[in-house]
Amino acid sequence: MFNIAVAQSGGPTSAINSSLAGVFAGAAATPEIECIYGSLNGIEGVIKDNFIDLRKILTSDYDRELLKKTPSTILGSCRYKLKNPDEDPSDYEKIAAVLSKHNIRAFFYIGGNDSMDTVMKLDAYFKEHNIQIKVIGVPKTIDNDVMNTDHTPGFGSAAKYVATSLQEIIRDSRVYSIPSVTIVEVMGRDAGWLTASSCVLRANGEPAPHLIYLPEVEFSIDKFLDDVKEAQKRYKAVIVAVSEGIRCDDEKYLSTGFSSELTDAFGHKYLSGIGKYLENVTAANIGCKVRSIELNVMQRCSSHIASLTDINEAEEIGRAAVKAALDGESGKMMVFRRMSNNPYRVEILTSDIREIANKEKKFPVEWINNEHNNVTTDALNYFLPLIQGEPEIEYRNGIPVHFRLDQ
Amino acid sequence: MFNIAVAQSGGPTSAINSSLAGVFAGAAATPEIECIYGSLNGIEGVIKDNFIDLRKILTSDYDRELLKKTPSTILGSCRYKLKNPDEDPSDYEKIAAVLSKHNIRAFFYIGGNDSMDTVMKLDAYFKEHNIQIKVIGVPKTIDNDVMNTDHTPGFGSAAKYVATSLQEIIRDSRVYSIPSVTIVEVMGRDAGWLTASSCVLRANGEPAPHLIYLPEVEFSIDKFLDDVKEAQKRYKAVIVAVSEGIRCDDEKYLSTGFSSELTDAFGHKYLSGIGKYLENVTAANIGCKVRSIELNVMQRCSSHIASLTDINEAEEIGRAAVKAALDGESGKMMVFRRMSNNPYRVEILTSDIREIANKEKKFPVEWINNEHNNVTTDALNYFLPLIQGEPEIEYRNGIPVHFRLDQ
Repeated sequence: MFNIAVAQSGGPTSAINSSLAGVFAGAAATPEIECIYGSLNGIEGVIKDNFIDLRKILTSDYDRELLKKTPSTILGSCRYKLKNPDEDPSDYEKIAAVLSKHNIRAFFYIGGNDSMDTVMKLDAYFKEHNIQIKVIGVPKTIDNDVMNTDHTPGFGSAAKYVATSLQEIIRDSRVYSIPSVTIVEVMGRDAGWLTASSCVLRANGEPAPHLIYLPEVEFSIDKFLDDVKEAQKRYKAVIVAVSEGIRCDDEKYLSTGFSSELTDAFGHKYLSGIGKYLENVTAANIGCKVRSIELNVMQRCSSHIASLTDINEAEEIGRAAVKAALDGESGKMMVFRRMSNNPYRVEILTSDIREIANKEKKFPVEWINNEHNNVTTDALNYFLPLIQGEPEIEYRNGIPVHFRLDQ
Repeated sequence: MFNIAVAQSGGPTSAINSSLAGVFAGAAATPEIECIYGSLNGIEGVIKDNFIDLRKILTSDYDRELLKKTPSTILGSCRYKLKNPDEDPSDYEKIAAVLSKHNIRAFFYIGGNDSMDTVMKLDAYFKEHNIQIKVIGVPKTIDNDVMNTDHTPGFGSAAKYVATSLQEIIRDSRVYSIPSVTIVEVMGRDAGWLTASSCVLRANGEPAPHLIYLPEVEFSIDKFLDDVKEAQKRYKAVIVAVSEGIRCDDEKYLSTGFSSELTDAFGHKYLSGIGKYLENVTAANIGCKVRSIELNVMQRCSSHIASLTDINEAEEIGRAAVKAALDGESGKMMVFRRMSNNPYRVEILTSDIREIANKEKKFPVEWINNEHNNVTTDALNYFLPLIQGEPEIEYRNGIPVHFRLDQ
């Protein structure tokens, strides 16, 4: 008999708890596994020996089903970057001591490409010091920017939220008889996947968003204004989807406060306000009714409109992670390989964490049109399967029920 | 045989099309009514003789059901204010001529308190000139600020969206171990109903939002900062719901650009950015992680999370409007009277438009706590019935299906 531990890291998604439910289910179905520990606030919880016994928390099928449909991370998260062990081995020593003390033989880390840095470093340290603890990464991020996997859990639900909300914004934008431009800012610091996914509305015959701008190609203010004017010839209410991280050629870019010099622990810049910026630029240059809308954190936590495909896959990949560890794998991240689009089929494999950690998978430039203001049908075909299906949501007093640790 | 016309006006909601479906259903069930005209872009469509034949558009039960679940206004809207006829009778003359030309004997205007100004003026003009056209107002607004009615169609769905999204934001806000303050800005220029409705989460044991600020009472920056500090003693992640229209005592109020001198056709100021403003104030004074979130137009058009109670009532009140006109009423707005909370029962009546037009129903000050930073249980009991039930949403390609005129 031995124990395992699982933790969640990075930004929340609607599916990260579903992967936790999957790891739990995989472990609970394994007779050799006794305790299933949840580390609070990611790797910080391991360092601080701050665990909860998940068997005491998830006591029924009802709990586990509710957990799958609860957004954000019930175990909390962190943005903690392990130093290189050569530089400072203290975190590693603490982690090894705590895990060993609890007889934890496998550690599962649900997170994005930054969190995979932790998986990589821990695995390397454990191997180097002949510590028998398997470390497996389980991907999650609404950004869909993790290497070696067809897509990441959390992305499909975010894309479904963006499409659903954008379609409602489109309806809203068409009510007045005057010309208007609506600029919707979508999350995506360096990768345009989520912004690009707004093209799925085309599948239902909706021509908007008429313009889509991604960080993978350079963004020109002048070209943008020309694009808007061109779109206005055809559409009274022009809809623009723009990634928060577009790279702008405008000199004013850095001086208008939409980019700041603040960085997080991984050196990422905090961005905000490209939508508001473009609103001002458009109003000043074109002069029609303009508004900007930031979908903000709702795009990463709106589990009431989650993709059932995403929620189910997130659980499956968590469950598969346990199997991989039991099979003796370590220093791997679980990945999806897409077998076919129609019918949609994926298989779950493992991939070397060293090919993944700290890297970013960009949206393919070949899926961006020549004008650099929209995406191709290949992109549409890629996105569509990921947003299919709706989880059954339980409502109490007219409000979705969430699984809560922090009563 | 005679004809009727219906139009939609003011800001979109998730339920205004349901009231249109109700007027249509009421008229379609009346053998004496031949054509059911929809005026495009509110009263402007009447002035310009710009009608569509709704019988040609809504050809099946499927269409009518889909229309009920489609946000915003399929007929378009306007913010057109009729001048006083003494000042300029030309609009009235055009309207009377166009309606008479089409043998329209009843005109139904679905809108908020500004739109009721149009109902009042038209009714007075028709009566004065002995023109036999009934004019009936059908209320709608997410602001819930219309006089003489228990509540307005559109409000319940907006409240359900706010509660659902806020609960997800609350989950999202709790992931990190550091203290944080999240400020959610909710629509409501002069009335705090929608912001106040965020208290419904209490019914499910959720203590957040911990602080609720409404425009009905004065707002003090210093008191706000004290409130936040006090809340931080109990809660790691403090959640604040603030109405966009709060009246602030701070001298900086007008100088920071969150209020502008722009006004709409009814003389309302455009407001934006109180959330961002309070974010900056909080960060500067308290220094923890702070973010602000603007729910923006999503709160008025997110039909995918509409209240079934709201959608059904919106249809019923539209249907009742037709009956009122057939009964000979004019210069009236349809209203709800709440008979009981538990079980929830309302009846639909008519009310004199002169008591309603251009007036605003404020959130009751007696439902605001002594500290002016939250609302009472009476408010909770008032709001809860309005957000109950979920319409069955049809999805195609993973995206809700909307009824669309503008293919």
